[in-house]
Amino acid sequence: MITNLNEEEVRGLLTEERVGRLGCIVSGEPYVVPVNYLYDGESILIHSLPGQKIIALRLNSNACLQVDRIESDFAWKSVIAFGTYEEINNAAERSRALDQLFKRFPQLTPVETLIAEDASAPAPIVFRIKVNRVTGISQSFW
Amino acid sequence: MITNLNEEEVRGLLTEERVGRLGCIVSGEPYVVPVNYLYDGESILIHSLPGQKIIALRLNSNACLQVDRIESDFAWKSVIAFGTYEEINNAAERSRALDQLFKRFPQLTPVETLIAEDASAPAPIVFRIKVNRVTGISQSFW
Repeated sequence: MITNLNEEEVRGLLTEERVGRLGCIVSGEPYVVPVNYLYDGESILIHSLPGQKIIALRLNSNACLQVDRIESDFAWKSVIAFGTYEEINNAAERSRALDQLFKRFPQLTPVETLIAEDASAPAPIVFRIKVNRVTGISQSFW
Repeated sequence: MITNLNEEEVRGLLTEERVGRLGCIVSGEPYVVPVNYLYDGESILIHSLPGQKIIALRLNSNACLQVDRIESDFAWKSVIAFGTYEEINNAAERSRALDQLFKRFPQLTPVETLIAEDASAPAPIVFRIKVNRVTGISQSFW
């Protein structure tokens, strides 16, 4: 049975999970990458090295984050949060966002550790997807 | 360390995995859904109930499938296959594609079982993403 999730269920899944797939548009084509994220109830916080998705999102700020919990081919939930890309450049706000992210993802990746040790490495980008609507469906046996 | 995967590694991961995230564009916005898929070396085969993604892909055939294998926040691979949506409507071809899909996904979902039992239910759509290029990256400790 496939059912729609209500908004509370969708926001619950967004809050609980920590890996999502970020969708954006690159040169008119869809582009999807896995990301660690944090949902604070209004926005999705993400940090990233500069690259293709950042270049694309600066040009076209329409973005979505798809998050799922898949137990089997026939028992899963999937939600999508749609919104717009906003880079967090204000120093205080950026530091607050990074604090939140590092609390949730305490183990810095080797790349990030390298960045901390190497001032010449590119600074990670911190951004939010300001969520303007969410949808979700669930499939189950029952 | 983040490295690019070569084409053979990308195609290997596409062949081995069975769940991917299909990206398409709906009304100018990115849209991402999890799908079961089968990669035959040239195309990605998918079957689906009629719905939002099918309507969208008929209007804009640009699509991608993102597939990953995530062991931890700092040990993962992710690939993207870019291509175009082609609906498989020819009866013989459709039957061949469904055979391949059901061999890989032998347990029909309850929805599909229901469809088999209820001729009034909408027929599933069978389609391929004809792959025109692939990319992939990997992050590891080593």
